[in-house]
Amino acid sequence: MIYYPDAFLDNLLMEDIQYGDLTSRALNIQDKPGVMTFTRRETGCISGIELARRLLEKLGLNVTTHLQDGDFAEQGALLITAEGRADALHQGWKVVQNVLEWSCGVSDYMAKMLAIYHRYQPKGQIACTRKNIPNTKLLATQAVLAGGGIIHRQGCSETILLFANHRRFLVEPDNWALHVKQLRQAAPEKSIVVEADDIEQAREALKAQPDILQLDKFSIEDIALLQQEAPRTAPHCHLSLAGGINLHTIEKYAQTGITLMVTSAPYYAPPADIKVRLRPKD
Amino acid sequence: MIYYPDAFLDNLLMEDIQYGDLTSRALNIQDKPGVMTFTRRETGCISGIELARRLLEKLGLNVTTHLQDGDFAEQGALLITAEGRADALHQGWKVVQNVLEWSCGVSDYMAKMLAIYHRYQPKGQIACTRKNIPNTKLLATQAVLAGGGIIHRQGCSETILLFANHRRFLVEPDNWALHVKQLRQAAPEKSIVVEADDIEQAREALKAQPDILQLDKFSIEDIALLQQEAPRTAPHCHLSLAGGINLHTIEKYAQTGITLMVTSAPYYAPPADIKVRLRPKD
Amino acid sequence: MIYYPDAFLDNLLMEDIQYGDLTSRALNIQDKPGVMTFTRRETGCISGIELARRLLEKLGLNVTTHLQDGDFAEQGALLITAEGRADALHQGWKVVQNVLEWSCGVSDYMAKMLAIYHRYQPKGQIACTRKNIPNTKLLATQAVLAGGGIIHRQGCSETILLFANHRRFLVEPDNWALHVKQLRQAAPEKSIVVEADDIEQAREALKAQPDILQLDKFSIEDIALLQQEAPRTAPHCHLSLAGGINLHTIEKYAQTGITLMVTSAPYYAPPADIKVRLRPKD
Amino acid sequence: MIYYPDAFLDNLLMEDIQYGDLTSRALNIQDKPGVMTFTRRETGCISGIELARRLLEKLGLNVTTHLQDGDFAEQGALLITAEGRADALHQGWKVVQNVLEWSCGVSDYMAKMLAIYHRYQPKGQIACTRKNIPNTKLLATQAVLAGGGIIHRQGCSETILLFANHRRFLVEPDNWALHVKQLRQAAPEKSIVVEADDIEQAREALKAQPDILQLDKFSIEDIALLQQEAPRTAPHCHLSLAGGINLHTIEKYAQTGITLMVTSAPYYAPPADIKVRLRPKD
Amino acid sequence: MIYYPDAFLDNLLMEDIQYGDLTSRALNIQDKPGVMTFTRRETGCISGIELARRLLEKLGLNVTTHLQDGDFAEQGALLITAEGRADALHQGWKVVQNVLEWSCGVSDYMAKMLAIYHRYQPKGQIACTRKNIPNTKLLATQAVLAGGGIIHRQGCSETILLFANHRRFLVEPDNWALHVKQLRQAAPEKSIVVEADDIEQAREALKAQPDILQLDKFSIEDIALLQQEAPRTAPHCHLSLAGGINLHTIEKYAQTGITLMVTSAPYYAPPADIKVRLRPKD
Amino acid sequence: MIYYPDAFLDNLLMEDIQYGDLTSRALNIQDKPGVMTFTRRETGCISGIELARRLLEKLGLNVTTHLQDGDFAEQGALLITAEGRADALHQGWKVVQNVLEWSCGVSDYMAKMLAIYHRYQPKGQIACTRKNIPNTKLLATQAVLAGGGIIHRQGCSETILLFANHRRFLVEPDNWALHVKQLRQAAPEKSIVVEADDIEQAREALKAQPDILQLDKFSIEDIALLQQEAPRTAPHCHLSLAGGINLHTIEKYAQTGITLMVTSAPYYAPPADIKVRLRPKD
Repeated sequence: MIYYPDAFLDNLLMEDIQYGDLTSRALNIQDKPGVMTFTRRETGCISGIELARRLLEKLGLNVTTHLQDGDFAEQGALLITAEGRADALHQGWKVVQNVLEWSCGVSDYMAKMLAIYHRYQPKGQIACTRKNIPNTKLLATQAVLAGGGIIHRQGCSETILLFANHRRFLVEPDNWALHVKQLRQAAPEKSIVVEADDIEQAREALKAQPDILQLDKFSIEDIALLQQEAPRTAPHCHLSLAGGINLHTIEKYAQTGITLMVTSAPYYAPPADIKVRLRPKD
Repeated sequence: MIYYPDAFLDNLLMEDIQYGDLTSRALNIQDKPGVMTFTRRETGCISGIELARRLLEKLGLNVTTHLQDGDFAEQGALLITAEGRADALHQGWKVVQNVLEWSCGVSDYMAKMLAIYHRYQPKGQIACTRKNIPNTKLLATQAVLAGGGIIHRQGCSETILLFANHRRFLVEPDNWALHVKQLRQAAPEKSIVVEADDIEQAREALKAQPDILQLDKFSIEDIALLQQEAPRTAPHCHLSLAGGINLHTIEKYAQTGITLMVTSAPYYAPPADIKVRLRPKD
Repeated sequence: MIYYPDAFLDNLLMEDIQYGDLTSRALNIQDKPGVMTFTRRETGCISGIELARRLLEKLGLNVTTHLQDGDFAEQGALLITAEGRADALHQGWKVVQNVLEWSCGVSDYMAKMLAIYHRYQPKGQIACTRKNIPNTKLLATQAVLAGGGIIHRQGCSETILLFANHRRFLVEPDNWALHVKQLRQAAPEKSIVVEADDIEQAREALKAQPDILQLDKFSIEDIALLQQEAPRTAPHCHLSLAGGINLHTIEKYAQTGITLMVTSAPYYAPPADIKVRLRPKD
Repeated sequence: MIYYPDAFLDNLLMEDIQYGDLTSRALNIQDKPGVMTFTRRETGCISGIELARRLLEKLGLNVTTHLQDGDFAEQGALLITAEGRADALHQGWKVVQNVLEWSCGVSDYMAKMLAIYHRYQPKGQIACTRKNIPNTKLLATQAVLAGGGIIHRQGCSETILLFANHRRFLVEPDNWALHVKQLRQAAPEKSIVVEADDIEQAREALKAQPDILQLDKFSIEDIALLQQEAPRTAPHCHLSLAGGINLHTIEKYAQTGITLMVTSAPYYAPPADIKVRLRPKD
Repeated sequence: MIYYPDAFLDNLLMEDIQYGDLTSRALNIQDKPGVMTFTRRETGCISGIELARRLLEKLGLNVTTHLQDGDFAEQGALLITAEGRADALHQGWKVVQNVLEWSCGVSDYMAKMLAIYHRYQPKGQIACTRKNIPNTKLLATQAVLAGGGIIHRQGCSETILLFANHRRFLVEPDNWALHVKQLRQAAPEKSIVVEADDIEQAREALKAQPDILQLDKFSIEDIALLQQEAPRTAPHCHLSLAGGINLHTIEKYAQTGITLMVTSAPYYAPPADIKVRLRPKD
Repeated sequence: MIYYPDAFLDNLLMEDIQYGDLTSRALNIQDKPGVMTFTRRETGCISGIELARRLLEKLGLNVTTHLQDGDFAEQGALLITAEGRADALHQGWKVVQNVLEWSCGVSDYMAKMLAIYHRYQPKGQIACTRKNIPNTKLLATQAVLAGGGIIHRQGCSETILLFANHRRFLVEPDNWALHVKQLRQAAPEKSIVVEADDIEQAREALKAQPDILQLDKFSIEDIALLQQEAPRTAPHCHLSLAGGINLHTIEKYAQTGITLMVTSAPYYAPPADIKVRLRPKD
């Protein structure tokens, strides 16, 4: 359960509705009682349902949710029904449609990646990075989790991740052992994760005994080599893959045997197609 | 020039940096002077530059922008250089990269659509809808404008747009003439825009003399028919196309002769590839 | 129905109550059960009722509203009853009184202007400008709508309105035809509204065929002249009047036959007199 | 010097400008260098200058202020000059005009009241209540102070003010002596201010020895009686007048000899007339 | 009753919970129904109960409060029971524990000071200053009031308090009579409070007839001297003590006979020990 | 470098200054030029300097900082000088004093703990928990870091920490091996930290091979036993101590040889004594 602060919900609403639906007002249908339904046109893993419920309730509508975040919807499945005044329904329409289309897009993309991945690595995990679309962190988190993914890191203040952009500032940029030792000393409660950009870096990194070695944009061949070498060089180090991991490549990478994939691809998934229908209440 | 409120900028920053870059702190490189460069790997229309500048300056960095929102960058073009403390650079890295990748993705997508469109309709306009990714309206607006697009409507309170979801609440849902008359009376300073979902609706709508008739998901054939009929039925009404307008279909629709396209596709453009490199200052 | 974000409501409350009603606390009457009534001393069109309800409910009070936004209250009419702890009642007293006095003042002023106007132009519309008192846009909008008015434009980003302050920046400041053509091309979904400051400008403007010509501070004589000329010069252009339109002048302008008035006067209406009485609950 | 938080300034700006001035953009004049001047059409006491400066600077403009909050402007006096891009000027135009018109209206109203008052009571003070227009407390405070007024109380948590609405909740609602004693004991650092609604109440109140007795809507005759009686009954108690104190009545009340007036009238002053002119920079 | 704005509550929550309790999620116990109890290990005056209730309810929990702000809890007393999903319970755990531990610490400290004070001065008041821990004003106020204290001043804009830091800017820094006269004239509705740093200042101050003379860090001997002198010099002036007033010194100062103490000590009270236990619901 | 959002800074300021310093205004000294100095009365580790600078600069003051966050100040050392208008100085006085007193109190407490700890464990780390005083997380973080401490966890969403409150919800609450395995699988990039409340739990926990075993309120004897057993049972597991770690106990615990201490004690450190002096500028 993700907690949604009121200001977050209100920002989503006000971004679209501002001073109300002008067309409803001009037609003088504001206080007509009505029903609004949200259905998902294609099958897939859904999310954003709980957020949608909160948004619609803030508008004073009576809301029924027919499925939950993380469920798989059949084609044409009814997700949400809302009842109330026509002007409130019109104010909630696009905001909630946008939330559902984006959220379901992300969670379904993640679910599809995992489905392929788990055929090869039944316990493999896909972690989403902090490279989310700006201003969507909370939305992205709920969608990724609903799709079965995990969060790589929410930001730069909570975990250790050593990049080349860090190493360049050190006196000995290529002295991985020194870096890992310093990081472990300075952050004793954190996993020490380091990123290597090529196989030479990876080999140096392994000697430094990090907790996780993240291989960025490695070829299948190099991954295979490291899979062999790592257990000998760094028996307690896990390997993860990052860079170019997406729905089109996951099968290829899944076959490497690596059990941890790091990706930003789901954030940029195409939106789900959510049909919204408003009608007067009989 | 889009104005960015301080809270908007701070939310973007805090979403990622929270309590600072832990890795920099653990490595004790925080106050090392450094330089960070942002370059665009592929050629294309850029945006987010001004926003990036504001973000980096809030972190206390000295910023030089080499190109502006709306410019076309050559492959590998240097966009921004920032100088300052290593910890500030590390805090700005991903936030700004995320802003640039998403913004440039959107603006370049829009620019590419327009390039194709203008080969057929040199004065054609592409307007982006309010179906933006939730919480990204301000970002989306700057990116769409930088790409040469215009804004269809920012929300539901500023323009008149009659949907079937409105009409169903009216006593005579198919009496378009009555609706348009009522809308024009109720909103005398607004363009009266109505949406039709099929050709029968379109023909009824035209008789009602709206200012703009928006054709939602129409076939090329039906568009052609309406192009012929409209000048006779409603000489002052403009036609616009919505639904399914994107980079892959724009050429087809451009050839209809319609000069106004309404789309949400650019919001879901793939991100641009922005390379970020940090290094100590010599 | 205007949507009121929680932060908007809380700002209104905190502006006055801060750390609670010190006098109630010093008298040790905080938890005494009580009743508070809001009555309108004079007859008139009311508004702010829905907003008042939300504010009082946030304080934990049980609220009954006896009339709605847009209703006409008889002299001495009871508007709202709230029940609960004495300290909550005292915290809600002035905030809600201020909201009602200002809101009812605005909506009644608007209703009175319309009553006069409609004697001459039964379908005439009065639109309120963006010259609201700073920080009161949402309040002002609900009050104007409740009084029967419409919104001219909420801000500068949603509609086209060409002022002399724009034209001075153009290469040919007096080439209205060029401006209107450019605006129509650049903003195909918007009404093109232009403002003229004297009759020569108005005549030039009409030749340019805008959708609406707004006449700023025109004499009755000049308005009459333009009423005659406009249908010939620009048959599809509507005329509107702005500048000096208020309760004292509306009758004069109503007789011109113009059906659209643009004004900021209601925002500065005198406050309604709302009586608030608190008493212990029997 | 009133401190203006960034969010306060940004709310004022965003209330109007949202996504920028559409007309400037459609005319393609955004980056033309220009000058904007604010002049006051009538003579009078001004305020809002410092706030205006902050707003214009947030838009990236170079600002010169020619007068300060609290100064008296001659007819046609130039208040502020701003220079910069045309789109920034257009974004700042109405926001700042609204701030200045409302602020100068309030401060000049206060200054005019004081000018009359001081002819009779050279040291008389006029205090403004917490009955400000909703959401304008900070604006109202700067304007009242600039006009020479003082603040009666900013809210209900900072001072003691005993109303009939409080007394009704007490066991002995008319035992003023008991109330004042209790208030003095409970709030030893506060002035004890009590309000009387008629002369009987006032006489009872005086016996209770409050620090200030506020007479609400008293006749000149009753005020005169109390002026005589008070020094004997309560030698340390000051009298103040509230209810119906405004520019039209101040002269009458000034002659009573009372040196403290409590009013909300300035908040509802008519706006000053501020002329704004934009032009390209030579 | 202190009013807590939603953003205040949400900030408290988000400070800790961000994207939810990762451990609960990893254990897959999120939706298990559970019960959480808060008990106070030591006896003492409690506060924060109402705030805790609001926080827990925002998380969707069903809450029962067993005691109220200001009550005295026996050792081991049950304060609050909350029921709901395990993930919501885990999200509320530390936030509410932190609120209760800090609040109860403050209110109990205040209550203990008052208990001692009242043995000597049964009507003595202890007022807390504006020297609260940054960003805790609202929390501090509820805790101080619950403990039986009062608020000295919430900030610098609501009361008059003349410090040496003010006097140094005056033409005659030691002319107390002039200062008090000017303050009384400029702020006729406020108590005039002045602070003296030594006995000479105090004597000068008394001659100026302030309403309250605040003695900062005075010796018991000097306080005794002033207690004798003050009634003669300034019969209407109250004395208060500030500086070094805390639980360890209150008995000493209580014996001086002064009935008003000003302190910041409770803000820095040690936290109460609140035990939190979560368990599955049977 | 901690980044401070503008709203954070403005909240700190507005909490105290609201509508300005009334006393300065009543004395009419607002625009007198002045100087304000902040000095630390006792020697000790300081923090809050950078935050203070930002706050004072927001008030328009010219600021010079003489020491930095993390420095050790000699007794009486000058920390900050600010120059500007008297009213701005008076507005900044208490806000900044409060920030410095609390921040320096925390950082100095941490520094003192570390000084003792490092005599026994030169590389020992002290990590502060998320049990901060409500609403002070950002302040607390800067102070803890300045004092040489580290952050245990900022909230519950970023790290794994298994408590008894979690285990009770599991099918087999005492099957530590199962829990650790599940946590490691579900959160492969996180350190698995588990808390034991007694030695039996600790022994079970060790068998489960967590990354860190946190011993809550253990006796010195039990710690010694575990120090012996742990390397055999769980060679890669680190031990940390929590509960009752503070300035009075750190020496005792330091001698156990444990190199990681977890504490909340610094948050409740007594405030430093910061002297603030304002004077007119010569």
